[in-house]
Amino acid sequence: MLHILPLATRRKAPTKPRLVQCEEGQHAESSAMAMKRASPPQKLSRWTSPPRTVLLVQKPDDERTTQAMGLVLSHLAKTAPHLNLLVEPHTARDHPSHADKLTVVEQGDEPLLERCTDLVVTIGGDGTILHVSHLFAGGECPAVLSFSMGTLGFLLPFHIDTLAPALEMTLNGPVSILQRMRLACTPLSADGEVLPCTGIVGQAGIQVMNEVTLHRGQHPHLTVIDAYFDEQHLTEAVADGLLLSTPTGSTAYSLSAGGPISHPETDAFLLTPIAPRSLSFRTVVLPGRGSVRLEISTSSRSPAELSIDGRQICHLRPKESVVISKSPYPIPCVERSEGGTGWVRDINSLLQFNTGFRNKSLMGHSIA
Amino acid sequence: MLHILPLATRRKAPTKPRLVQCEEGQHAESSAMAMKRASPPQKLSRWTSPPRTVLLVQKPDDERTTQAMGLVLSHLAKTAPHLNLLVEPHTARDHPSHADKLTVVEQGDEPLLERCTDLVVTIGGDGTILHVSHLFAGGECPAVLSFSMGTLGFLLPFHIDTLAPALEMTLNGPVSILQRMRLACTPLSADGEVLPCTGIVGQAGIQVMNEVTLHRGQHPHLTVIDAYFDEQHLTEAVADGLLLSTPTGSTAYSLSAGGPISHPETDAFLLTPIAPRSLSFRTVVLPGRGSVRLEISTSSRSPAELSIDGRQICHLRPKESVVISKSPYPIPCVERSEGGTGWVRDINSLLQFNTGFRNKSLMGHSIA
Amino acid sequence: MLHILPLATRRKAPTKPRLVQCEEGQHAESSAMAMKRASPPQKLSRWTSPPRTVLLVQKPDDERTTQAMGLVLSHLAKTAPHLNLLVEPHTARDHPSHADKLTVVEQGDEPLLERCTDLVVTIGGDGTILHVSHLFAGGECPAVLSFSMGTLGFLLPFHIDTLAPALEMTLNGPVSILQRMRLACTPLSADGEVLPCTGIVGQAGIQVMNEVTLHRGQHPHLTVIDAYFDEQHLTEAVADGLLLSTPTGSTAYSLSAGGPISHPETDAFLLTPIAPRSLSFRTVVLPGRGSVRLEISTSSRSPAELSIDGRQICHLRPKESVVISKSPYPIPCVERSEGGTGWVRDINSLLQFNTGFRNKSLMGHSIA
Amino acid sequence: MLHILPLATRRKAPTKPRLVQCEEGQHAESSAMAMKRASPPQKLSRWTSPPRTVLLVQKPDDERTTQAMGLVLSHLAKTAPHLNLLVEPHTARDHPSHADKLTVVEQGDEPLLERCTDLVVTIGGDGTILHVSHLFAGGECPAVLSFSMGTLGFLLPFHIDTLAPALEMTLNGPVSILQRMRLACTPLSADGEVLPCTGIVGQAGIQVMNEVTLHRGQHPHLTVIDAYFDEQHLTEAVADGLLLSTPTGSTAYSLSAGGPISHPETDAFLLTPIAPRSLSFRTVVLPGRGSVRLEISTSSRSPAELSIDGRQICHLRPKESVVISKSPYPIPCVERSEGGTGWVRDINSLLQFNTGFRNKSLMGHSIA
Ligand SMILES: NC(=O)C1=CN([C@@H]2O[C@H](COP(=O)(O)OP(=O)(O)OC[C@H]3O[C@@H](n4cnc5c(N)ncnc54)[C@H](O)[C@@H]3O)[C@@H](O)[C@H]2O)C=CC1
Ligand SMILES: NC(=O)C1=CN([C@@H]2O[C@H](COP(=O)(O)OP(=O)(O)OC[C@H]3O[C@@H](n4cnc5c(N)ncnc54)[C@H](O)[C@@H]3O)[C@@H](O)[C@H]2O)C=CC1
Ligand SMILES: NC(=O)C1=CN([C@@H]2O[C@H](COP(=O)(O)OP(=O)(O)OC[C@H]3O[C@@H](n4cnc5c(N)ncnc54)[C@H](O)[C@@H]3O)[C@@H](O)[C@H]2O)C=CC1
Ligand SMILES: NC(=O)C1=CN([C@@H]2O[C@H](COP(=O)(O)OP(=O)(O)OC[C@H]3O[C@@H](n4cnc5c(N)ncnc54)[C@H](O)[C@@H]3O)[C@@H](O)[C@H]2O)C=CC1
Repeated sequence: MLHILPLATRRKAPTKPRLVQCEEGQHAESSAMAMKRASPPQKLSRWTSPPRTVLLVQKPDDERTTQAMGLVLSHLAKTAPHLNLLVEPHTARDHPSHADKLTVVEQGDEPLLERCTDLVVTIGGDGTILHVSHLFAGGECPAVLSFSMGTLGFLLPFHIDTLAPALEMTLNGPVSILQRMRLACTPLSADGEVLPCTGIVGQAGIQVMNEVTLHRGQHPHLTVIDAYFDEQHLTEAVADGLLLSTPTGSTAYSLSAGGPISHPETDAFLLTPIAPRSLSFRTVVLPGRGSVRLEISTSSRSPAELSIDGRQICHLRPKESVVISKSPYPIPCVERSEGGTGWVRDINSLLQFNTGFRNKSLMGHSIA
Repeated sequence: MLHILPLATRRKAPTKPRLVQCEEGQHAESSAMAMKRASPPQKLSRWTSPPRTVLLVQKPDDERTTQAMGLVLSHLAKTAPHLNLLVEPHTARDHPSHADKLTVVEQGDEPLLERCTDLVVTIGGDGTILHVSHLFAGGECPAVLSFSMGTLGFLLPFHIDTLAPALEMTLNGPVSILQRMRLACTPLSADGEVLPCTGIVGQAGIQVMNEVTLHRGQHPHLTVIDAYFDEQHLTEAVADGLLLSTPTGSTAYSLSAGGPISHPETDAFLLTPIAPRSLSFRTVVLPGRGSVRLEISTSSRSPAELSIDGRQICHLRPKESVVISKSPYPIPCVERSEGGTGWVRDINSLLQFNTGFRNKSLMGHSIA
Repeated sequence: MLHILPLATRRKAPTKPRLVQCEEGQHAESSAMAMKRASPPQKLSRWTSPPRTVLLVQKPDDERTTQAMGLVLSHLAKTAPHLNLLVEPHTARDHPSHADKLTVVEQGDEPLLERCTDLVVTIGGDGTILHVSHLFAGGECPAVLSFSMGTLGFLLPFHIDTLAPALEMTLNGPVSILQRMRLACTPLSADGEVLPCTGIVGQAGIQVMNEVTLHRGQHPHLTVIDAYFDEQHLTEAVADGLLLSTPTGSTAYSLSAGGPISHPETDAFLLTPIAPRSLSFRTVVLPGRGSVRLEISTSSRSPAELSIDGRQICHLRPKESVVISKSPYPIPCVERSEGGTGWVRDINSLLQFNTGFRNKSLMGHSIA
Repeated sequence: MLHILPLATRRKAPTKPRLVQCEEGQHAESSAMAMKRASPPQKLSRWTSPPRTVLLVQKPDDERTTQAMGLVLSHLAKTAPHLNLLVEPHTARDHPSHADKLTVVEQGDEPLLERCTDLVVTIGGDGTILHVSHLFAGGECPAVLSFSMGTLGFLLPFHIDTLAPALEMTLNGPVSILQRMRLACTPLSADGEVLPCTGIVGQAGIQVMNEVTLHRGQHPHLTVIDAYFDEQHLTEAVADGLLLSTPTGSTAYSLSAGGPISHPETDAFLLTPIAPRSLSFRTVVLPGRGSVRLEISTSSRSPAELSIDGRQICHLRPKESVVISKSPYPIPCVERSEGGTGWVRDINSLLQFNTGFRNKSLMGHSIA
């Protein structure tokens, strides 16, 4: 249980180790290289003090992932025995031999998690990072280092085979960090009261990594949703659903629903309809500074499911709504530091963005 | 020159060898197999009399294609010395050693071509078949056997390595034939007179394999085009251009412009806009029985280029139009007879239709 | 109850009145008008013998529709007292004063309905015609005359204000008929047995007017569906869902999911994915002669809902599938006979197809 | 000629009147209104000193626009006789009676224009503002007040009927200003030298309001373009063309080519292909901080036309490229200050964004 974590760690929360961006001067670049340089200077971050408490998260019920987590535990036991290691119950169960060195995080411990954790290490898929975001849905999220078991995933820059060097680099710094924007959302009643819902709701609402979705779900009939931008009525969606996505989420549900692909650093939201009864409802790109409200219309014949990052958290009935704006709490994701942004690599290799046809460009033909 | 072709061949035009579909009885199928049989019964065709005159067409200025054509010539000299072989001038030039056995088809010979040719063999790319369609743009087109040099193309079912068996099967029959619909189009003046244009215009107009395109071309301003279906006003396109495609052409320009993919046997046209100034202009699928007219609007600031299968044939000014309907002259394409339709294979392997993402389906995650 | 209908009517089923197309000779057209005539010659149909039994269907719980039905009943009582009038229970309840002249059709009577009914008259919306299709889901559907209460609907060519002339024209003929293709579908177990489902299943399966849909419904995870064309594997859809639509249905769910718009007379199906996890899954247009099978993949984490025309009829689990082909039973819809096809009018006025922008075409500007 | 403008004006360039944003304090808002306030607080700007030199631009060869410009001239003569009025030659010719009060700007004067002009007033269409952007393509652009003659245009917030109050408000301040991002682009040779092109090239390259476009133009064959983001290879486009658009330009060519609609304040570019030979080339949204380079591939069979805001400025051959980044010189556009952003109004009223269907939501139907 988290509350048995040594006091030191918890007390130090105010001065807990953080990653801060290194000063520009440290990476001077000759201005001559400006126009055609190979890639933008990596912005590196260093720790204010060494990280002490690490949360280890793995995909459950997966043999290979469990084995890999075993390796991480052994490696850390040897190379960083001073670290406090936090794990979820299923991870503790899977690694009884490490039991004495592990602190188990139980359901309800999430508020403490936020204050204790300096770093999160995940092994699994994109869903595992979404799960981490969910654990820290109430507020600040520590840096996340993510390993994939096989093919690199969209949110998974490191392969498990690079375990040792990646851990070393991350624990010592400097590291390359991509701040992935999150959304902060709050479901509201017709009177503007916060609605009850499953999951962790913080002061700033619920923090979301991919998208906030309203969907007809099991109801056979179209939902009708009014979308407001900065409280100005933008449009009425008659559709299966409507979602507001982060740039990170642009390659998730929004893409399936026809939306564009966004670079993760774009300061923007994507408002994308799901199967709208309209020929003319394209994705709308909105500036990150604004706020969006989605309200179930009184002309909607059925309630809509409200989901965040694919988890259903409540139903909204006509006049109920969800308010969404940029979260003050992005997720700091540890990136590989060599060779350009991983995003360009990923949309090409994982999404097969703009894959060429195989019978391209044949030469012309004339009779002459 | 084609007019020196032995009289026999030319005179026989009325009774020239043709491919006709074998009778159903010849391919009886137990009705028990109905619901879940592996694939529809191949419809096979046989020759009414053995083909005598073969047109050999190759992509020009391409070393490897020329070599392959050399193989075809040698093979036919050995195995079918009785055949009349027709070639274009550049092919004759590339194969001087076969000169005495080749009849050269010159520009202007096209009307004769139609009467003389029993079979066309092509080596090259999709563009080479489009070129054949163009040679027979005035009317009937004989069966076409197409070889690719490397990757199979969309209109290229045979690999050059299968030269000998493919030729043998095709010359003797029975063969599997895909009748690819063509369009017949005629450019008209404001008064309904046929407009002059480059290329071959027959009684039924110009036969087109992929699509008829109107495009602003070099003009910076949008064109305005009125589209009529069966002379009923369908819509006004303000766009870079507008095209009417065959099912075969659905994987060519229409696809690039956002159109759906059609099975080649669908009896339908696709009307697809190119970069339309509208949020709500989708492809329209029209029944093959109808006729379409595209007319440059008097509100268009510039003329439009009229192209067929990628070749510009004239400019249309306001009030001028092009009338299009299903051609009475499809192209009989020789298909491979094993294993289902090549089309399904091609949209998957060549177009990479619905390519899956590489990081699919990860298992769920919960804290419990 | 339908089984109390006078025997004469029921016995006559074999020789029941039908609409058959008038012979071509009756509508000779000078061939001179060919190229630019105003619209294709209307194909008219006449009755083999006068219709005797009419099913009257109205949208339930709608005041205005009920009033309109009252007018129809009074009008028919006066002008065609010899007709047998069939109604659903809620219609009978709404019109007690006509009770003695009405035969009530109860749930379970559908098989009889097919044999008895010569004509259906509907008042309501598009959903009301879908309901009629559903009543005749087991097989043949009689001609349908549809009235809208206000704006014309997509499947509603007549306005209620034209009640008298429209009824007269339809009862006497000749009438203009649009045969709307239906799909015939059958849900199958992994072993190829027909699966139980709600609704009417005939010899030819279930007849469908708009589309057959597989959807994840309330399940949060993507469904995985294998699509076969003529039993050749076409593609694997990882998506919210997948649908196969008739041309009529192209303006319903398929359109919302991004599909093209099809003329109702096109002999084709549209296979359209709903929010597919792919950048490259466009609608596929398939020829009406083929058959499609959609099977839940063993890699799908959840079952899928099978719906026809928006009604959920069962759940399919991995290895279960639905087979679909063109129904032998289209719906003969009575059309207005003047002025071209209603479809062109409808996509423009109802769907706002290719609506122009309001600030079009401004003249150029240069400094000179 | 501009160089005869009174010295005072030109000398004062360093201290020329500018619009600067009013301090936050001036528009305090009770924090209680936070969550559901009607719209974001307008950010207002005021003049550092009164504007003295106004450039008046009108659409040429348009009777009604000329009359409207007459009104502007008379109004300013009466109410602001101290202003220096600059006009283009065609405007001077159209208003001989005002000749003595007008300074004519001739071709070649553009560099001076930038230093002299405090405010631009336009009458015409969206093209007229694009023309103003072009006049100031070399660098800074003064505030622009735009009048439409009829329907409001996308870039035209004021109707000519509000001439007097709009001018008064703008000349005196405070005014509501929308800073519309521009792109800065430079065409480069294979060796990285700046290529000659028509139009004004400043230190920061050419400033562009809508988009930079590469297009095959009159060439029948597809162009092949390599796109780099921050010099990392992003993708290879085989297409009619490829464009990089500002948020303002998202409703221009990018929209026609299938791109999303962006709020003008989003700090992002849109990379949108025009008719790409790919099923999987969606618009990519890139952060405003980055740089994009589009290079003609050596595998491209033809050169490409380089256009900015619809004007062709040069041809690029294989290995030649254009580098594009956010311009330091946005266009300050005077907005109406009441009632939310004009953009929401415009996408709804002008673009008909997500126009509803007319036969929406009919009630259900069941037999019972
Ligand atoms: N039709 C669709 O495409 C649907 C998509 N989703 C997405 O699934 C997400 C997670 O929910 P689960 O139920 O756990 O997913 P899941 O296990 O059903 O699979 C979601 C898939 O999306 C991928 N993914 C997740 N985030 C991604 C990102 N930012 N970029 C690229 N790929 C990403 C995952 O790798 C996985 O392949 C939701 O946030 C939503 O975006 C959810 C429902 C339907
Ligand atoms: N933006 C675009 O996608 C454009 C496409 N085209 C297409 O090019 C065709 C031929 O013109 P060319 O100048 O010789 O072409 P090209 O040599 O410029 O290349 C056309 C490409 O289209 C492919 N192709 C042709 N027909 C096809 C079909 N039915 N299905 C699948 N792929 C096909 C060819 O293999 C080749 O890769 C035209 O009929 C038109 O469809 C023409 C201009 C622009
Ligand atoms: N996201 C979407 O667009 C969805 C659409 N549907 C459609 O609704 C249909 C009927 O189901 P209900 O639950 O009664 O519908 P509903 O009452 O929820 O509304 C369906 C809407 O579609 C219209 N519609 C129906 N058939 C049409 C056609 N062929 N062409 C143009 N418009 C048409 C109706 O007028 C109505 O506006 C289904 O067959 C399906 O096509 C069903 C679920 C979701
Ligand atoms: N297929 C297409 O949609 C094409 C569009 N264009 C666009 O035309 C623009 C101007 O070039 P011109 O030759 O003078 O145009 P034009 O006189 O041919 O017409 C361009 C149309 O676009 C509108 N427009 C311009 N900027 C806009 C914006 N930011 N938002 C919404 N609408 C806008 C204008 O009002 C006009 O209706 C280019 O910057 C380009 O964006 C240019 C070529 C083709």
